[in-house]
Amino acid sequence: MLEELKEKVCAANLDLCEKGVVIYTWGNVSGISDDRKYMVIKPSGVDYKGMSSDDMVVVDIESGCKVEGKWKPSSDTPTHLELYRIYKNINGIAHTHSVNAVAFAQAGIGIPALGTTHADYFYGDIPCTRELTRQEVMNDYEINTGKVIIETIEKNKSDTMTIPGVLVKNHGPFAWGNSPENAVYNAVVMEKVAEMALKTLLINQDAYMNKYILDKHYLRKHGKDAYYGQD
Amino acid sequence: MLEELKEKVCAANLDLCEKGVVIYTWGNVSGISDDRKYMVIKPSGVDYKGMSSDDMVVVDIESGCKVEGKWKPSSDTPTHLELYRIYKNINGIAHTHSVNAVAFAQAGIGIPALGTTHADYFYGDIPCTRELTRQEVMNDYEINTGKVIIETIEKNKSDTMTIPGVLVKNHGPFAWGNSPENAVYNAVVMEKVAEMALKTLLINQDAYMNKYILDKHYLRKHGKDAYYGQD
Amino acid sequence: MLEELKEKVCAANLDLCEKGVVIYTWGNVSGISDDRKYMVIKPSGVDYKGMSSDDMVVVDIESGCKVEGKWKPSSDTPTHLELYRIYKNINGIAHTHSVNAVAFAQAGIGIPALGTTHADYFYGDIPCTRELTRQEVMNDYEINTGKVIIETIEKNKSDTMTIPGVLVKNHGPFAWGNSPENAVYNAVVMEKVAEMALKTLLINQDAYMNKYILDKHYLRKHGKDAYYGQD
Amino acid sequence: MLEELKEKVCAANLDLCEKGVVIYTWGNVSGISDDRKYMVIKPSGVDYKGMSSDDMVVVDIESGCKVEGKWKPSSDTPTHLELYRIYKNINGIAHTHSVNAVAFAQAGIGIPALGTTHADYFYGDIPCTRELTRQEVMNDYEINTGKVIIETIEKNKSDTMTIPGVLVKNHGPFAWGNSPENAVYNAVVMEKVAEMALKTLLINQDAYMNKYILDKHYLRKHGKDAYYGQD
Repeated sequence: MLEELKEKVCAANLDLCEKGVVIYTWGNVSGISDDRKYMVIKPSGVDYKGMSSDDMVVVDIESGCKVEGKWKPSSDTPTHLELYRIYKNINGIAHTHSVNAVAFAQAGIGIPALGTTHADYFYGDIPCTRELTRQEVMNDYEINTGKVIIETIEKNKSDTMTIPGVLVKNHGPFAWGNSPENAVYNAVVMEKVAEMALKTLLINQDAYMNKYILDKHYLRKHGKDAYYGQD
Repeated sequence: MLEELKEKVCAANLDLCEKGVVIYTWGNVSGISDDRKYMVIKPSGVDYKGMSSDDMVVVDIESGCKVEGKWKPSSDTPTHLELYRIYKNINGIAHTHSVNAVAFAQAGIGIPALGTTHADYFYGDIPCTRELTRQEVMNDYEINTGKVIIETIEKNKSDTMTIPGVLVKNHGPFAWGNSPENAVYNAVVMEKVAEMALKTLLINQDAYMNKYILDKHYLRKHGKDAYYGQD
Repeated sequence: MLEELKEKVCAANLDLCEKGVVIYTWGNVSGISDDRKYMVIKPSGVDYKGMSSDDMVVVDIESGCKVEGKWKPSSDTPTHLELYRIYKNINGIAHTHSVNAVAFAQAGIGIPALGTTHADYFYGDIPCTRELTRQEVMNDYEINTGKVIIETIEKNKSDTMTIPGVLVKNHGPFAWGNSPENAVYNAVVMEKVAEMALKTLLINQDAYMNKYILDKHYLRKHGKDAYYGQD
Repeated sequence: MLEELKEKVCAANLDLCEKGVVIYTWGNVSGISDDRKYMVIKPSGVDYKGMSSDDMVVVDIESGCKVEGKWKPSSDTPTHLELYRIYKNINGIAHTHSVNAVAFAQAGIGIPALGTTHADYFYGDIPCTRELTRQEVMNDYEINTGKVIIETIEKNKSDTMTIPGVLVKNHGPFAWGNSPENAVYNAVVMEKVAEMALKTLLINQDAYMNKYILDKHYLRKHGKDAYYGQD
């Protein structure tokens, strides 16, 4: 079932590796079926080398149960499911261990919007979640990781698609998009702007970007009168 | 029309990608025709992968209108045009999102001339523009980006060819040269000297280079009695 | 003798090079025979380029004498032997000169457990040994390097397999595992988490991770009720 | 003439590029003939791409005049000559623009010996020259660069072969060795230990290595009772 989606999710997972945002078995990408009944996701702890679409796992969105696949799904599966259930415009999710984004997550600080590279994709700071409580970690950790991402999006009053990513404190980046491929794209951009932001702060701790520049760059690309790119 | 120039501009754009100063669709390179009537530039938001000279867009320098090409030109087109109109010795312009140069741009600080690698190509600090005003951003943003680059060059009393690049605050580097290829070359050097400068400042915040060393290195390569390189 | 082990040890040594944690002749990997009588190790000062399993050296664990091989064994041989003699669960050891882990070793500071990437493999800070005394360096330096690693493990009350690596002060990382390949894996992860930790501290000097997050991530992967990965 | 030496010098120059310590036409490597009458060096300002041994230039050591070759020799030729004239044990010299070593040179600070990777090749801090005076820069700059390197070696009471490299302030690293290949090797190691030192200092500004560890590592590899490597 969902052979085409499996191909796309597998390709997006392999792209994580090629773009240098994961090594070994780290990270995972998922995608959702058109009817939003099923999620296809990378298997847990399986190496990217030699991975094919046959290795992808199909999970029922509502029940969270595996529907098809020879492997157990990613241990982060419940986190992905939470996001798909709440946000109907998310069609792909990518979780990476890219060094600079992880550094901000470990520092417990969001990635500040300091330049137009950031503004072209993220309409504001990329927020970092609060720390999960002991209770939240001990019980249903992966579900609670999803919940704290959602809490952060809501608290931030950001739209999932205007800021398509969040850092989970002490953990790392989750990014999403309108397809598995687009989720990886946003994860790669997040890593790049994290590196830029870190180096900017090393040069000037008081660096900032005015809101009107953020508006301009984000909206010339994503606003209703966008003129960046082709029609 | 201008098939040879399209080939050169396309090759220079692909070189941005190969040299690691852009990813995805980021950045752009343009070139100008010998009669300075037309600019050839990368299309807006098109991926470097698979790009060919057929994808290049021809724009009329005076009117700013597209003359030929199947795509819309880069959204930074008006910035390039401003520079070509004012500086008759610029024959190629490259805009990148290279991490270290962007870090200085986001920090709002020019790249200081701290060593001979810098002095071999840039005869002084590479300046950073002032911040654009809200007005300048909201109306004719890309034209105003060109104007603030020009203002910075003039205020700095530098010659376009002795310091062939500027950082646009919160945005990133623009470099130029006597050809599209040379513009990319200068953009790559700018990234390298930005990385060297950043690391130098991490070791010694008071690092500096004496003016006579700057003079010596720049002039042994570019002065009237230059002796670096072949005749 | 031990042809299969030589193949594995050689492959693990070449992997050091491919993963970028050594250059030239730096670093070394060893493995131990099933009966724990013999160690197979890289020869001393031999380049990775063109290395084959025939170049590996077999050393008697008890006597420390070479048993087979056309080269002298790695000068770090006595360090490896000390570890194999004390820890019966170590089946492979890797020593690298990876930049970020070396930076912590040179700084004399352990790699702090600041995130889940770290917690997935190392159940706590990766400790740094004390400085060897003049006496320990002048006599039996390599044996004493082994002894100070052991002292550090014991003082830290860590288990060799829950924190499969130590930094030797002013020297660099030693990692180990249940096979030569796994030792290299842990050495590569150590380098990655060292880079993450260094960058985290540049952003926030007070960064930390709560013990319950460390527990959760380590134990969901390595505890008795582990559910990460496949059965 | 000297065809074999030209091959070696050309290969060493190409190795600079492959090891990532130069880009474009930057840097240069030279070698000296067995009778120490002639130096073979890279031509000035010629790209590494497509360079062959035919492009190498032969220079008379005593007169400094070109003896053979279709190109002008490297502009740093007088610097190389000064070193060959004074130090009879130097058979190859490499000058690079590697980022981390340049950062120390631009900072005007030597690369401190903080670990055993450094100690394996450099028996002490890699010193940085004083700033050249205006007079020294304006007249015979390249000769004076050689002289200040020699002054630094002598003042440091180091032997050219125990510390086979120096940083020239505001310029960058010069390394040497018993062959052109070995000079490049030392230049690559210098870059690596510069990167390690810079990162070490970011973690701990007071990092140091005891002299007896420096002695041990340098001497186990280069001393009269050396036991590192093969006989």
